[in-house]
Amino acid sequence: MHVLVIGAAGMIGRKLVASLLGSGHVNGHDITRLTLHDVIMPEQPQTTIPVDVKASDISVPHEANVLVASKPDLIFHLAAIVSGEAEANLELGYRVNFDGTRLLFDAIRIIGGEYCPRVVLASSLAVYGAPLPDVIDDTQHLTPLTSYGTQKAMAELLLADYSRRGVLDGIGIRLPTICVRPGLPNKAASGFFSGIIREPLNGQEAVLPVGDNVQHWFASPRSATEFLMHAASLDTALLGAQRNLMMPGVGATVGEQIDALRRIAGERAVRLIRREPNESIARIIAGWPRLFNPARAKALGFKAETSFDEIINIHIADVLGGVVKA
Amino acid sequence: MHVLVIGAAGMIGRKLVASLLGSGHVNGHDITRLTLHDVIMPEQPQTTIPVDVKASDISVPHEANVLVASKPDLIFHLAAIVSGEAEANLELGYRVNFDGTRLLFDAIRIIGGEYCPRVVLASSLAVYGAPLPDVIDDTQHLTPLTSYGTQKAMAELLLADYSRRGVLDGIGIRLPTICVRPGLPNKAASGFFSGIIREPLNGQEAVLPVGDNVQHWFASPRSATEFLMHAASLDTALLGAQRNLMMPGVGATVGEQIDALRRIAGERAVRLIRREPNESIARIIAGWPRLFNPARAKALGFKAETSFDEIINIHIADVLGGVVKA
Repeated sequence: MHVLVIGAAGMIGRKLVASLLGSGHVNGHDITRLTLHDVIMPEQPQTTIPVDVKASDISVPHEANVLVASKPDLIFHLAAIVSGEAEANLELGYRVNFDGTRLLFDAIRIIGGEYCPRVVLASSLAVYGAPLPDVIDDTQHLTPLTSYGTQKAMAELLLADYSRRGVLDGIGIRLPTICVRPGLPNKAASGFFSGIIREPLNGQEAVLPVGDNVQHWFASPRSATEFLMHAASLDTALLGAQRNLMMPGVGATVGEQIDALRRIAGERAVRLIRREPNESIARIIAGWPRLFNPARAKALGFKAETSFDEIINIHIADVLGGVVKA
Repeated sequence: MHVLVIGAAGMIGRKLVASLLGSGHVNGHDITRLTLHDVIMPEQPQTTIPVDVKASDISVPHEANVLVASKPDLIFHLAAIVSGEAEANLELGYRVNFDGTRLLFDAIRIIGGEYCPRVVLASSLAVYGAPLPDVIDDTQHLTPLTSYGTQKAMAELLLADYSRRGVLDGIGIRLPTICVRPGLPNKAASGFFSGIIREPLNGQEAVLPVGDNVQHWFASPRSATEFLMHAASLDTALLGAQRNLMMPGVGATVGEQIDALRRIAGERAVRLIRREPNESIARIIAGWPRLFNPARAKALGFKAETSFDEIINIHIADVLGGVVKA
């Protein structure tokens, strides 16, 4: 089978590619060809499977048509402008996050005939917006409070309609906040959720802008990859018309995150967290989901971590090679 | 104030224009100019208020920019490809119902500066799709089962986001099924809900393709106009971030519709209803909403009829000039 990964150079994209190449097959079908696409050129992986790497802007008309002309059987669509940037630049966010997705779906539609690839769309808990119940279930209505969340919710609707019409065989995966995000600190409002774990484990100071009682919903990068792989091989007949699913995760307060860090890396690591309350970040976070009951996804076999300790240990194993500097 | 009506030549559009001209003001502001737009040329009304009539395709880039260049203070956006046609022609439906709306919103955005008109968007109960609870409340999640419903749900999301960002001051009005629809029978799956009242009152036979226990949600054309007028003058600060509202209506079964017809026009009228079960129509209708509890809209002052008798009597008064032929 021919697999296309759009957004292959991103953090999740690179892990997904490694997972695809490590497995060599999806749902019992050998991967015979892999196309990796991003706006910057993805790395050429070392593998015996033929891999094409391509760079282009998916939101430019016709680029998607070129990408799907070879009729990939399975398409992962992970490319997106992140939340903060989509908020800062309205046109860019709509163009990439919505138009890019629609151009992809329409490129598939225009091929027509028997062609109906599985399309796995990375969505986000940003589709939810306050007021929210303490525990969010699968029937929560979507009232996004960011342009990013709006764009993802619109893309989800399109995915469901095009799936209903037999244009594509879509499944939308609402990812939890990915934690521990590897790499350098960024300016996202959510950045500290990873920062207060990642930096101390690396012997560095981290800033905590909110109180210990702030609660949020997390999954590891490893789980994110597993969600995507599972979505690629799921029997979509089980989804009915509702093609978009909130993913499982770990609900944890900042206090519980810190407790887990203490258990794993000791008080020295915890002392590297510097409290610097930031009203503006606290206000943004207050509108975010806290806990989910993702019963549908669980019943369909999606699995995440079961404790925040596990999330930290995955970061130590996968990113730090087992070595904690704190 | 300058009022722009897009979709002014349609059934609701014409009633809205009559209502605007009859009142002469909106929310205490005199209407000093009216622009009527549709894909076919709207009728030039007889009035002392300056009225421009225009015909163009709103889904063609730049047409919306031309329309809003004069910065109307209030915009009603009623233009749409109907449900059946949007289902039959995927490209046309997305182009008019979604792109047309987005081009309008973006034309407003591009003007920028202080310009932030009230935009009243006609949406529909088609945004809801089975499985549905017996009574649908304001937090029902949207899982449309038609392309039309999908396009309206996407337009609603855009309206909310652009309102949040201060591009426009939007309110989306989810209309019940309008009943009694005047004019000739059409081929819409919902056509019989009006037909079994309209045709007998006119001394003509009507076909009933479903059973008496089928229940649905109705409002008169007069109520539809009043919803739009109320939305135009509402304090949108009361809406918070949730800019889209299900409208009140009358929940009635087909049996209750027929009972009301009997009370008003007698058994002779009822005998003009010919039962001709149609499995395919029955299956479509089975996925539709039955009853709503539109608490938010009611609290905000939106009002509909309180019985199906009232809906029939409005048709007799407004369309038949008080004369029943049955």
